[in-house]
Amino acid sequence: MIQQLRSLETQARLLTAAADCFTRAGYDATGVVEICARAGVSKGAFYHHFASKQAVFLALFNAWIADLEAVMQSARTPDKTAPQQLAALAGMVQQVFDTATGQLPMFVEFWRQATKEPDVWQVTIEPYRRFRTAFAVLVSEGVAEGSLRPVNPELAAHVLVSLGVGLVLQGVLDPKGAEWSGAAEEAIQLLLNGLGAEKAYEP
Amino acid sequence: MIQQLRSLETQARLLTAAADCFTRAGYDATGVVEICARAGVSKGAFYHHFASKQAVFLALFNAWIADLEAVMQSARTPDKTAPQQLAALAGMVQQVFDTATGQLPMFVEFWRQATKEPDVWQVTIEPYRRFRTAFAVLVSEGVAEGSLRPVNPELAAHVLVSLGVGLVLQGVLDPKGAEWSGAAEEAIQLLLNGLGAEKAYEP
Repeated sequence: MIQQLRSLETQARLLTAAADCFTRAGYDATGVVEICARAGVSKGAFYHHFASKQAVFLALFNAWIADLEAVMQSARTPDKTAPQQLAALAGMVQQVFDTATGQLPMFVEFWRQATKEPDVWQVTIEPYRRFRTAFAVLVSEGVAEGSLRPVNPELAAHVLVSLGVGLVLQGVLDPKGAEWSGAAEEAIQLLLNGLGAEKAYEP
Repeated sequence: MIQQLRSLETQARLLTAAADCFTRAGYDATGVVEICARAGVSKGAFYHHFASKQAVFLALFNAWIADLEAVMQSARTPDKTAPQQLAALAGMVQQVFDTATGQLPMFVEFWRQATKEPDVWQVTIEPYRRFRTAFAVLVSEGVAEGSLRPVNPELAAHVLVSLGVGLVLQGVLDPKGAEWSGAAEEAIQLLLNGLGAEKAYEP
């Protein structure tokens, strides 16, 4: 039991150390040696937890996406209409920004590696598609329950994901450029008007 | 005259060579020496045209943004309503994608340096703000002429820029993930419905 906890702690320390290294020096300039040194962990312990530098990198990415998906999941309350759930999601954008603050260098490293390594590209691209599917399901439900106009769910999902990606990226890149959280809520409201959901939208 | 042309040609060759180097090796790993070697140009000639590696980097960024602004400008026809101009812009997204194809690594390098160097950050952030202002002016005109509902122009501009950024980034990252150009046109249509411009929208 204590050994399991210690193992989890080591893993967490390696993840934190790796994120620090990637953020400061970049992915290319970081080696397993540097990660181990910063974490105060042996190379043997590193390879017990991760197969490679790329593996720890992808684990960091997946952890970030898992956070985002948890946020999305928490807005999926079946007793609410689709527009209400979308409005709730917009209200959670602040959380996303809080999670993302200081993460831009890391985020950019993911993209950079995605352009170089097909494995990373595959992992980077996957969540966008998954979010699009989730939004399409939500919109379909809205159309079925009559809270949204009979729009094309795939298309509406594109718009929602694009809007989300654009808002988050601008917010991360230029935190003081706007009141991003408020902008997200108002943006969803504008879009809900477009989806014909004025009446159903009761925040 | 011939000397001027030669000078322009040298500058263009340096820009192309720099873009190649930044894309292949990354900004950090590229030096003025590598750029000169690839361009087949002397260091003296380089410094005649650019003050530093950063200067040629920013020149590449500004050239890309200038292309985007030219696209935006070409949709600004005063005889059309604001919704018609927005629809025309959406129809130009294919052009933006064509310009952006293969540019993702370069684009990511800009972001990466923006997170490291305040000078680059300032230059990177500026166009987003400029595009937001341009869209806000367009929406204001639409509200004034009655083709758009009296929405907050700043807010609508946020939505439009975020949507554009999100669509382009996803399109560049995942060209085969969707029919991005069509998605942009449909997205604007959805949004125009939200802006209350159904009747004014005549493609």
